[in-house]
Amino acid sequence: MGQPPSRRLRVDLTPREELSFSDVVLVVDVIRATTTATAFLEAGASALYLTPSLEVARAFKDEDVITSGEVGGLKPPGFDLGNSPREALQAQVGGRTVVMSTTNGTKAAHLAAKSAKHVLLASLYNAHAAARLAHELATEEVAVLCAGKEGRVGLDDAYTAGVLAEFLQLMGSYSLEDGALVALSTRRTYPDPLEPLTLSAAAQALKQAGLEDDVPFCAEVARSPAVPLLQGRSGETPLSPRSGEALIFRRGQGL
Amino acid sequence: MGQPPSRRLRVDLTPREELSFSDVVLVVDVIRATTTATAFLEAGASALYLTPSLEVARAFKDEDVITSGEVGGLKPPGFDLGNSPREALQAQVGGRTVVMSTTNGTKAAHLAAKSAKHVLLASLYNAHAAARLAHELATEEVAVLCAGKEGRVGLDDAYTAGVLAEFLQLMGSYSLEDGALVALSTRRTYPDPLEPLTLSAAAQALKQAGLEDDVPFCAEVARSPAVPLLQGRSGETPLSPRSGEALIFRRGQGL
Repeated sequence: MGQPPSRRLRVDLTPREELSFSDVVLVVDVIRATTTATAFLEAGASALYLTPSLEVARAFKDEDVITSGEVGGLKPPGFDLGNSPREALQAQVGGRTVVMSTTNGTKAAHLAAKSAKHVLLASLYNAHAAARLAHELATEEVAVLCAGKEGRVGLDDAYTAGVLAEFLQLMGSYSLEDGALVALSTRRTYPDPLEPLTLSAAAQALKQAGLEDDVPFCAEVARSPAVPLLQGRSGETPLSPRSGEALIFRRGQGL
Repeated sequence: MGQPPSRRLRVDLTPREELSFSDVVLVVDVIRATTTATAFLEAGASALYLTPSLEVARAFKDEDVITSGEVGGLKPPGFDLGNSPREALQAQVGGRTVVMSTTNGTKAAHLAAKSAKHVLLASLYNAHAAARLAHELATEEVAVLCAGKEGRVGLDDAYTAGVLAEFLQLMGSYSLEDGALVALSTRRTYPDPLEPLTLSAAAQALKQAGLEDDVPFCAEVARSPAVPLLQGRSGETPLSPRSGEALIFRRGQGL
């Protein structure tokens, strides 16, 4: 007989207000918020502020920050950048703070931050690194919280949760609950990540907005070692005491 | 170019109060409520009353009905029967009304009944017949609403939704949203229905209660042609005007 599983692996396919988390949460909004967040760190941003609304993001406008966000997929009026990971990777953000506000991903991150010990932003793009950091940080549970789309399950996020679950299982023994088994099933059904991402409602909405070229970027697996890790809230820093609601992510140090 | 899909196929993996349904809903709580409900009709029951609580079920006790239900998997005090499909199939219910109250399945049925045109109870046991009746009734959408377990996705219900989706696709053209693709993935990952059902949290809970012999029954596919179809509410009938909350299901007539 081997040792019993040392940690639980749980996947929540949609955010719900009642959810609570006891340990590590990987927040997934692969098309596009968590991919874009990773790309900003990859491009050298020193911090990411995730705000719960466009208004809170706008309140940072007087600071020396870069604002990024979306409404219906498009850049909100007055923002510096949209929510495109391709754009984020090319942006001149070295050493700077990026303030992001997106529809589903940001809400999921705030939900996770209410109770979790550690909140990481995960995508296919940083899947290996995010899984590794989550594994290192976890003492009892890794939860994957899928942002979904307007309260509904997203095929893209469910697939990404399955990829993360596969990586986690390579590193240690996990007991899998039902959501994790459903996510792993989704992963195993599609050998090519581009297929489930392209089929997803999130990709269809991007196509409507003429932004479908972001989808192949979001489908790249394990290209970036950058993992946004929650390190505080904006009310706790001197940068913007007037807005206590932004979550501050910096590059997590694994290994 | 073929014809465009004529209907939508949608799967909701967990009930949420905000959900609304425009056409046909297949409610799935495969371990065990919707399997047991089907078994009662298979055994000859003329009607099933699904009550939202044990108290409402108890209010029917003076009528000539048989009460069935569960609390933590076990028969509630004063009830005639538990929630076992094996027991239901053997029960002397010919021509009689069964009043059922269960934890997750009943809640999902009431949620569906708030907005849907047609509500059917589906399980693996009646999967072919339930899919066929849903297909016949639908003009625009078939939705599968999985009961899950205390708000979380159930591997057993997600798998059953995938089986129903497969049967529906055999009968006509459906456009699939993300939840349907996730359910189909789950179906395709497990060739043997007993495997996902046994792995599910619902089966694990039954095992704790010593009721694991119900799981192989719930894993039988397409054995019964009986499909419980919502046909009214108890407030609308003379049987129990004091309780307006029970949903009345009778055997649906397809084909």
